[in-house]
Amino acid sequence: MNVYFACSITGGREFEPVYQAIVRALREDDHTVPTAHLAESGVMDLESVIDPCEVYTRDVAWIRACHVLVAEVSLPSHGVGYEIGFSLGLGKPVLALHQEGRKISKMISGNPDPNLSVECYRTSEEAALQIRKFLNKHKLYL
Amino acid sequence: MNVYFACSITGGREFEPVYQAIVRALREDDHTVPTAHLAESGVMDLESVIDPCEVYTRDVAWIRACHVLVAEVSLPSHGVGYEIGFSLGLGKPVLALHQEGRKISKMISGNPDPNLSVECYRTSEEAALQIRKFLNKHKLYL
Repeated sequence: MNVYFACSITGGREFEPVYQAIVRALREDDHTVPTAHLAESGVMDLESVIDPCEVYTRDVAWIRACHVLVAEVSLPSHGVGYEIGFSLGLGKPVLALHQEGRKISKMISGNPDPNLSVECYRTSEEAALQIRKFLNKHKLYL
Repeated sequence: MNVYFACSITGGREFEPVYQAIVRALREDDHTVPTAHLAESGVMDLESVIDPCEVYTRDVAWIRACHVLVAEVSLPSHGVGYEIGFSLGLGKPVLALHQEGRKISKMISGNPDPNLSVECYRTSEEAALQIRKFLNKHKLYL
């Protein structure tokens, strides 16, 4: 499957090891992850040299092309919030994953869209497991 | 005009004085601000007792009913990012305001939607001025 992975960049990078574990798990299962570089440590420098319009146009094209969006939402992010809304608007399944105990926006936790799943995890392994469960459910509809 | 004001809640409250100045300026000009309570100091406690689904349903109904959305985006927020995307999807004019020098998401700064204006300010007075300019431009189309 083509999986758009969304995570915080400007909003903080303390969950980077989880982002990397998620991308690794997705690739191990042979999924395509156009945004895999967002999990890398140098992403802030990498993205800062690209024109903002180019990033927007590229990311929106990737969302349109993906089967599902997987978002790590433990840290607040305008970009990830925007992408979740945009994807649901296109009718794409979205998984919003967060560390157990984290406060998340009610625009996510209270969103009744049947295409949105909100799940929590304690470890990176649990996060990967939640993603596998979500993708297994949705691959039936491809 | 009916103005939906969006700001960070879970993502941090250090810009609360600016939020309050914005709401004050909007009310002084006789605009309706359904989300005025989001600028108040006790909003975290106030919103924590309401069911997330109720908040989502209420906020989405308010966005549908507003003429424009004014978002303070200096601090990252999933909810505000979601609301900006949702409003643009509905064809509503959106003003994203941030303190000068703040890094903001490229899904906002690089977004070519003609309905989106991104402006910065140095003081609360300048923020209010930017909003007046934005509303003056858009009231012509009501």
